[in-house]
Amino acid sequence: MQSIQRNGTTARYSDSVVHGGIVYLVEVPASSDGDVAIQTREILDSLARQLNAAGSAPDRILSATIYLTDMADYARMNAVWDAWVPSGSAPSRACVQVVGLADPGWRVEIAMTAATR
Amino acid sequence: MQSIQRNGTTARYSDSVVHGGIVYLVEVPASSDGDVAIQTREILDSLARQLNAAGSAPDRILSATIYLTDMADYARMNAVWDAWVPSGSAPSRACVQVVGLADPGWRVEIAMTAATR
Amino acid sequence: MQSIQRNGTTARYSDSVVHGGIVYLVEVPASSDGDVAIQTREILDSLARQLNAAGSAPDRILSATIYLTDMADYARMNAVWDAWVPSGSAPSRACVQVVGLADPGWRVEIAMTAATR
Repeated sequence: MQSIQRNGTTARYSDSVVHGGIVYLVEVPASSDGDVAIQTREILDSLARQLNAAGSAPDRILSATIYLTDMADYARMNAVWDAWVPSGSAPSRACVQVVGLADPGWRVEIAMTAATR
Repeated sequence: MQSIQRNGTTARYSDSVVHGGIVYLVEVPASSDGDVAIQTREILDSLARQLNAAGSAPDRILSATIYLTDMADYARMNAVWDAWVPSGSAPSRACVQVVGLADPGWRVEIAMTAATR
Repeated sequence: MQSIQRNGTTARYSDSVVHGGIVYLVEVPASSDGDVAIQTREILDSLARQLNAAGSAPDRILSATIYLTDMADYARMNAVWDAWVPSGSAPSRACVQVVGLADPGWRVEIAMTAATR
């Protein structure tokens, strides 16, 4: 039976889960009052830390789902995203506008899968 | 070529798909008039049955995406979720509020991936 | 380290990503003024091409997430979808209504994972 490694596990979720060479992770903003650029930066900074801690890296991202609460934030989210993604390493990516996230101040949430090194 | 096992397959979807040691599944409520606690329980009961039938188990869940139609249901959905997840086995989890699901009475839908035993 | 193959890579996304026998892809409509049947057809035609180019095929789909901007489009999207999915090969599938997609004219967006041959 292939082992599962869970990081930052609570009763509700794990910060990341590693199995079979794949890392599964979801990140929400650290702040609930920043604008979308700040919140996207917070998320991507945290994802980079978690990827590295899980034996992966930003250039090993496979897929991403970006949930925005306002599509008017699209360009500003993308400016941060495009600068963060290592050149030549962009994942398969969906981006949709949802009604809301768990905290009313959150403007963005990102789910990802990545390959370990 | 690695085989794909499909369970409960219709022209539109399969209840679960197993490939390479991973189970992919999505569940919707059995009822369309229950409150969110009842519907979440219905979904998680069905997911547990499907996971076991597919050679996995609730403590092997890797990732989950929870779609709610009203974030006011968040706490009641979580109460059922937190009690259902085996201790120490919480997955990577995203939770978003969408406009609606395929049946107007559904308040929650859950997509998951899990590892086989 | 298991290699990652990326196709159609920009600074923001890849059309598809292949790793460990799994293809990750997301497709949006080619047109922003077609109705949902036309847009779904455009997406599925493109997904079929991308799957084949990535060493997979429509009968190797594992999971799909369908984002609609209006659940009133559900039946017409499904008519195209049901006809496209090879018999006996339907994936695990979630379908939700979101507020909007990146282009205001898009009525549908589909994310998929598939197994290579």
